[in-house]
Amino acid sequence: MKGSGTQDLIQGLLAGNRRALARAITLIENRDPAARDILRHIYPLAADPAIIGVTGAPGVGKSTLVAALTRAYRARGRRVGVLAVDPSSPFTGGALLGDRVRLMTAERDDDVYFRSVATRGRVGGLSRATASVLQVMAAASFDPILLETVGAGQSEVEVMGLAETVLVVLAPGLGDEIQAFKAGILEIGDIFVVNKADREGADRTVTELKAMLALGPGHPGEDDGHWRPPVIKTVARDGEGIEELIEAIVEHRRFVRASGRTAARRRRLAEQQLWESAAERLVADLQQAAQARSLWSEAVAAIAEGRRDPDSVVEDLLAAVDGRKEASEPQEKGGVGA
Amino acid sequence: MKGSGTQDLIQGLLAGNRRALARAITLIENRDPAARDILRHIYPLAADPAIIGVTGAPGVGKSTLVAALTRAYRARGRRVGVLAVDPSSPFTGGALLGDRVRLMTAERDDDVYFRSVATRGRVGGLSRATASVLQVMAAASFDPILLETVGAGQSEVEVMGLAETVLVVLAPGLGDEIQAFKAGILEIGDIFVVNKADREGADRTVTELKAMLALGPGHPGEDDGHWRPPVIKTVARDGEGIEELIEAIVEHRRFVRASGRTAARRRRLAEQQLWESAAERLVADLQQAAQARSLWSEAVAAIAEGRRDPDSVVEDLLAAVDGRKEASEPQEKGGVGA
Repeated sequence: MKGSGTQDLIQGLLAGNRRALARAITLIENRDPAARDILRHIYPLAADPAIIGVTGAPGVGKSTLVAALTRAYRARGRRVGVLAVDPSSPFTGGALLGDRVRLMTAERDDDVYFRSVATRGRVGGLSRATASVLQVMAAASFDPILLETVGAGQSEVEVMGLAETVLVVLAPGLGDEIQAFKAGILEIGDIFVVNKADREGADRTVTELKAMLALGPGHPGEDDGHWRPPVIKTVARDGEGIEELIEAIVEHRRFVRASGRTAARRRRLAEQQLWESAAERLVADLQQAAQARSLWSEAVAAIAEGRRDPDSVVEDLLAAVDGRKEASEPQEKGGVGA
Repeated sequence: MKGSGTQDLIQGLLAGNRRALARAITLIENRDPAARDILRHIYPLAADPAIIGVTGAPGVGKSTLVAALTRAYRARGRRVGVLAVDPSSPFTGGALLGDRVRLMTAERDDDVYFRSVATRGRVGGLSRATASVLQVMAAASFDPILLETVGAGQSEVEVMGLAETVLVVLAPGLGDEIQAFKAGILEIGDIFVVNKADREGADRTVTELKAMLALGPGHPGEDDGHWRPPVIKTVARDGEGIEELIEAIVEHRRFVRASGRTAARRRRLAEQQLWESAAERLVADLQQAAQARSLWSEAVAAIAEGRRDPDSVVEDLLAAVDGRKEASEPQEKGGVGA
């Protein structure tokens, strides 16, 4: 099935070759059919790296923190992958994060791999593509992989679901941001980082954050088998607090693996990936079958003009397409646009 | 097919009854099968209201602006719907927006209908549910409908795609926000509102915004048949600038309807709704067929444990399920989890 080019690529990937990794990621981004072959082969072979999510509002210093973590892991001899995801930018192709990532790559190091992934296509597709990219980075022996995203929208929450440990980054004096956090991101943080902790108000931010965490539904008290998210102060620019942060990450990883949470999270992710993969395949098949008789465009027109609702159009489409496949069964229903 | 309860609900909805509307929306939110019947019947009957999207970062005064617009439209004798969507909150059920909406409803007015919709289920589902809710609000003769959302993530951009005119709201002195806007939300704004314009720095915000708009790829110069997004200053709390804003909304609506952009937007939306509806239906069918032989949970386990990749698992699932339906064809392939 697969060409020798793909086979070489898989070999290169498993040998940790950076160019092979770059090509594989591009194939995934472009939804190239070769990406399927690659994923099929590496899935059972990929290692199990620590995937560390880093999220927070713009301006809190996420990229500086990621750079500091990268240096600290490199000092430990680790091979570090950084994947910057920019769900807020369907138009500019992730330029915001991309630029910063390029700045960081100015220091060349063969054991650090940076990549930014921008949104393509429909919403659910982003976390699916990100999951595949994480898989090829894991196959190329990068561990840990730092997964950086901007903002607090639903896509970001979903992308953060791919991480084993989620760092939520804040900075002092962003009162409104904390308010916004209330609405959702608080529950996904495993570790909270108050960066730029040399600024005025850092202690107040820590205090407010701890108070909110104590109230949060997902974060009960200590000594009950639950993880209690620590709040850690850093000045990422100077590397301050980074060692403490890495210790907390290690501790969290130990906790989730021992408690069976990692297995539960993986099942959830697997179910979601299965859903998305099935949806893409099944709708593509339906679309192709319907397009042959221009039923698909009739269906779109019927909805666009407000004549029909999507669910009943789908029902008719399925009946019409089934009627074609099973030619022995007469097809009585009218056209989709009727 | 449909019970007399559903028939009464449809009648009430078309008569503009608020309780019928509230029940219909709850049925949509809960994915109740009765919602399908309702949508099927009202789709061809619903009017074509102005749908005005209002988006922007927390703290810019979106809700105050929505309240000011509501009062101004009420003064014109219009029946105003407000739909607040909170994609950032999969956990708290949209409490952030919901609370503010409830505050507004303290002033009782039968010709104003407020509702907040929170995220349920998968990502793409939000805009699908929102589209259905807009449809039932339209059927109940609310026009205009103000569609409010928080933030600048991909889900928000998608929800704003349901609006005919998108207002992007900013406030002076939120420099970082403007930076964040660069990354995506700039292109979706049809009208930019600098609210809290009595604050220091309002003119600078307007100047910076205009400079950015002039650079933006989607916003070429005047006199070339393109819409040039105006920048309007408001003090929503005092109703300042609201009349000018409403004029701009009317002008934009006239422009998009005359230029055929509304038709193009509706086709795009219809295609998306069709995709989502088909995906939900087809995956549910596959899941049901696979569950009967516990193939679905085997498939989830194979992905979760890293043994298989999602796409090839889906292929095997389809083959196994087809093999069952067409019993005459022998099924040679192994199980999904093999």
